Amino acid sequence: METHFQKELETLKENLLKMASVVEKAIADAVQSLIARDSALAEKTIRSDGVVNDLEMAIDDMCIKLLALRQPMAIDLRFITGAMKIVTDLERMGDQAVNIAERAVSLNQEPQLKPYIDLPRMAEIAQSMVRDVLDAFVRQDAKLARSVCERDDLVDGLNDQVFRELLTYMMSDSKTIPRCVHLMIVGRCLERIADHATNIAEDVIFMADARVIKHHADTREKE
Amino acid sequence: METHFQKELETLKENLLKMASVVEKAIADAVQSLIARDSALAEKTIRSDGVVNDLEMAIDDMCIKLLALRQPMAIDLRFITGAMKIVTDLERMGDQAVNIAERAVSLNQEPQLKPYIDLPRMAEIAQSMVRDVLDAFVRQDAKLARSVCERDDLVDGLNDQVFRELLTYMMSDSKTIPRCVHLMIVGRCLERIADHATNIAEDVIFMADARVIKHHADTREKE
Repeated sequence: METHFQKELETLKENLLKMASVVEKAIADAVQSLIARDSALAEKTIRSDGVVNDLEMAIDDMCIKLLALRQPMAIDLRFITGAMKIVTDLERMGDQAVNIAERAVSLNQEPQLKPYIDLPRMAEIAQSMVRDVLDAFVRQDAKLARSVCERDDLVDGLNDQVFRELLTYMMSDSKTIPRCVHLMIVGRCLERIADHATNIAEDVIFMADARVIKHHADTREKE
Repeated sequence: METHFQKELETLKENLLKMASVVEKAIADAVQSLIARDSALAEKTIRSDGVVNDLEMAIDDMCIKLLALRQPMAIDLRFITGAMKIVTDLERMGDQAVNIAERAVSLNQEPQLKPYIDLPRMAEIAQSMVRDVLDAFVRQDAKLARSVCERDDLVDGLNDQVFRELLTYMMSDSKTIPRCVHLMIVGRCLERIADHATNIAEDVIFMADARVIKHHADTREKE
């Protein structure tokens, strides 16, 4: 029974990592469709959101079944309820990728305002956060989770920079305003993706700390 | 045992409704601080976010304990895991209210751009969505949940209208751009609040439908 349950938990972890890699690719493709002015890629990214939604429902169902049939305790219980929260965050990150792809479709119809420098950098960091925070969750690695939280400040800083730069474009030439607004929203989407990753990272740290506190209490009890 | 568990579920429902009313008030206060140009109210709203975060952690803990100690089945299991997802949405709505209050503090330092008409209307609808979707959840009322989903289109429509109007201000007078951007973000925050309420509503409909399908299956089995 125990080994079967452990195997089910392994499958859950694999599915979470799979969903994370689909979302990570959606973010990469959305930003690439903007940089390469590739509206076909943008449309493909928008359509791929169905996969993310299906994965969310499948993993949610799996968690509910594990809770009902295995009635897990302590760490396993936290892991499964944590997984249910994470799929919600991943699904919302997928929505943000769709939002970026939609902006790319609009922006690609007009001349490019400026070379994109900070947005691809933000996207890279956001992708690394999605990848690492899921690794941190499945391995319960608080240190890696903390490094994800730290990267959130980088993304926020870059977004402020993008925002201010676009503001100067808007103020000096009102014809650029619609494009600037689209690009501001792209920046905000990437910032939101980093926020979702940070939410997950905070949960991982909380779970890991709870385990440490619990461990200390257990040791004290034995003394 | 059963009655004690039922009592615990009642307490969980009460806490959810309490958290929802705190968030609803935060949204109302944030928008009021903008309309009445009352920065003290805005600061108070920003500080009150701690209460929302504490409630989220308390309810999460309560759910984990119920799962571990009561090992609930079927409908109760869905209800408790649903509650854990809902507190996440409520907490994020609280964050959006803080974001609105922060914009109000900035906007109140400059002359008012225009009378606010659509934003208070959006806020009213968003508040009614938060209130009703929590009622729909605790009463498992799919019909009420559907009405919440319908209101999301209203909020989206108003936000588009606000967005377009602000765009015309920005394009005709570049001095208005910083204020317009703040107001665009306020509109987007209200839209996000409505999105969170819609997420919850969709879960309620899904849960209610699953029960209906389950009920049909049970009836067929008996036949």
